[in-house]
Amino acid sequence: MANNMLIGQSGGPTVAINASLAGAIKRAMKSPQIGEIYGTLNGLEGVLGQRIIDLRKDLRSVEDFQRLQATPAMALGSCRFKLPEQPDETYEKILETFHRYGIGYFFYIGGNDSMDTVKKLSAYFESKGETIRCVGIPKTIDNDLPCTDHTPGFGSAAKYIATCVAEIVCDSEVYDIPSVTIVEIMGRNAGWLTAASVLARRENCTAPHLIYLPEAPFDPKRFLDRLRDLGRTTKHIVVAVSEGVRLPNGEYVATAKSGATDAFGHRYLAGVGKFLEDLVRERIGCKVRSVELNVLQRSASHLYSGTDIREAYRIGAEAVSFALSGKTGVMAVLHRISNHPYLVSYEYAGIGEVANLEKRVPREWIAPSGCDVGEELVEYLRPLILGEAKEMAADGVPVYFAFDKTPVAPK
Amino acid sequence: MANNMLIGQSGGPTVAINASLAGAIKRAMKSPQIGEIYGTLNGLEGVLGQRIIDLRKDLRSVEDFQRLQATPAMALGSCRFKLPEQPDETYEKILETFHRYGIGYFFYIGGNDSMDTVKKLSAYFESKGETIRCVGIPKTIDNDLPCTDHTPGFGSAAKYIATCVAEIVCDSEVYDIPSVTIVEIMGRNAGWLTAASVLARRENCTAPHLIYLPEAPFDPKRFLDRLRDLGRTTKHIVVAVSEGVRLPNGEYVATAKSGATDAFGHRYLAGVGKFLEDLVRERIGCKVRSVELNVLQRSASHLYSGTDIREAYRIGAEAVSFALSGKTGVMAVLHRISNHPYLVSYEYAGIGEVANLEKRVPREWIAPSGCDVGEELVEYLRPLILGEAKEMAADGVPVYFAFDKTPVAPK
Repeated sequence: MANNMLIGQSGGPTVAINASLAGAIKRAMKSPQIGEIYGTLNGLEGVLGQRIIDLRKDLRSVEDFQRLQATPAMALGSCRFKLPEQPDETYEKILETFHRYGIGYFFYIGGNDSMDTVKKLSAYFESKGETIRCVGIPKTIDNDLPCTDHTPGFGSAAKYIATCVAEIVCDSEVYDIPSVTIVEIMGRNAGWLTAASVLARRENCTAPHLIYLPEAPFDPKRFLDRLRDLGRTTKHIVVAVSEGVRLPNGEYVATAKSGATDAFGHRYLAGVGKFLEDLVRERIGCKVRSVELNVLQRSASHLYSGTDIREAYRIGAEAVSFALSGKTGVMAVLHRISNHPYLVSYEYAGIGEVANLEKRVPREWIAPSGCDVGEELVEYLRPLILGEAKEMAADGVPVYFAFDKTPVAPK
Repeated sequence: MANNMLIGQSGGPTVAINASLAGAIKRAMKSPQIGEIYGTLNGLEGVLGQRIIDLRKDLRSVEDFQRLQATPAMALGSCRFKLPEQPDETYEKILETFHRYGIGYFFYIGGNDSMDTVKKLSAYFESKGETIRCVGIPKTIDNDLPCTDHTPGFGSAAKYIATCVAEIVCDSEVYDIPSVTIVEIMGRNAGWLTAASVLARRENCTAPHLIYLPEAPFDPKRFLDRLRDLGRTTKHIVVAVSEGVRLPNGEYVATAKSGATDAFGHRYLAGVGKFLEDLVRERIGCKVRSVELNVLQRSASHLYSGTDIREAYRIGAEAVSFALSGKTGVMAVLHRISNHPYLVSYEYAGIGEVANLEKRVPREWIAPSGCDVGEELVEYLRPLILGEAKEMAADGVPVYFAFDKTPVAPK
């Protein structure tokens, strides 16, 4: 039986995806059943284009592994590649490459779409009588994969958001005039990231005062009423809003076109933060600004969560163990055992229960008002951001790990 | 002689301004010549509105001082208040408050405008035969104050920019298709902050590939030509651009209205990053995005520069010593003695040489091409970002210091 391993990354970057890569490689290195350890560049694209590299070669020391874990984005590169529904010549080409490289174990680190790939390939290999084992390793900052308590990558993004919102709150308070600050946070359909802004609250700091997730309808009129109410007691109001909030009719707020909600009479192309900023300026008239937390939400490795990186590393390692014990067509998952103390176990779920499905924030975890999160959600979030990043800087900037990306022929 | 001290903060926030406050208070506490230590809330507004607090009260332990140093924005609040050119009743009111509180030493931490206040007040007090000593303590992320080698607050902003650009570079490389990423950086007239993006370069990483400061004219046609040239050898191009870059005719690029440079035929209200993004999409047609580094450039205390915070603390302390030795109408400054090892001394400069003047990047520190920085500038920047932030987190988010802001009557 073929006993080499191939691993790839797919979908959008997270701060933790290289930690899962490191964990999988490390476990594989310790497993006598596994021969060569290959990586595919840009996910399936590398399989199809024969851009396959040797992963043992560059990872020689403990420090190499530590650096890889703390390197943002994706050390193997990514792709947005969806396999056709029915097996075709693309599937055949993939299998051919797997045969050439003697691949017996395949790992794909990614989100919903990547799990779709794991599902399709594992079914295809089985239908061909192949014993190649395919295991998915979850990652996404959006935390929207089902079957797992949370996804690696989410905790670091949540910590980044909590910290930056806390800093923006301080920044919003310097002048002695009433102000509204709107922070726009990623998450088109799921509000997990925006919910994490609640962790900026602390003793003597009730900001952010309003938190809007896409799971609850957003009514601009009620939003303005709430701001006016709050304004009576609070000089500096901070609002956290998901980019994906929608009007009661289901339309995205940021593209609302008509009616009382739109002060402009035309399609609005900027994000929801800018839209609400203009709305507040027009209707309330106080000092107002919006801040869009940008791509750093998914790539700010300097502010990773220690818990997140540790779990991402471990789930990568466990995925290898699952494959070695014969599992295929599964995704490794995190199961939360308890909050006090915070404990998780590493399990797996059938890939059919995961692929293409989306886990959103339960409505009962959002405050009845629709503009705050409930205590259950806070409890859920709290442990995920614990643990500070370790200093890995040289000359004041972080040091990253990079693989030699020269493709290798099968050994 | 009145021997109480009053200190205030003014202008925009920086990560280091509270460190200067901490340093000044600490030195004052150790000085038997100084009686009460007062702070004014929101700068001169607090003096005029009798919102003066007791600073000794809340700072009891070494830990309090450490927290204050690492707290972003301004612990005393700020204002944008410009004194009239000629002394009037506002000046009289200020002097009256100083008399009531027995103020003999006044410190103002701020940028150009705040130094204008120090200049006017010190001249006014002198003209009235008062012995009140007024000393300015510099801060600004823009690094545009003359007479000082650099300004406290700049090093931390520079470190934030270098780190985030390094992370954005990683993020820009994940997909195997040609792309241009434009990072817009603060600095309306001076390019120091944008120049700091160069520190993201390292072994095997030549990004950012193009760096545009406001001190060199920006020609959109040449910019596109350079992108096309670079595109032949570089798949993922990263551009750092100052919000303040201007066309050869002196107009801001982001508001350019006509001619070959504008693909839209109307006044463009978004920032220069968005403008260049649209230009590249229209004229080159490759994948392109822009990232605006937002207000976190001035408030991300989680990523402060150790050097910056140390210097900010010390310059606050030295300002107190200057006042005690009889100086007035001066600003404390940093003088760089050497780069290897990096050494500075703390001096002072006449406030007339500082107030309302702007220090820009010398043209000879910019590459002749106008789209990169020179080695001298890199040497200048390097030491300012050294030293990592100390862990001051609880529950995964930073812990901040806050004063009790209840005004006190004169003692």
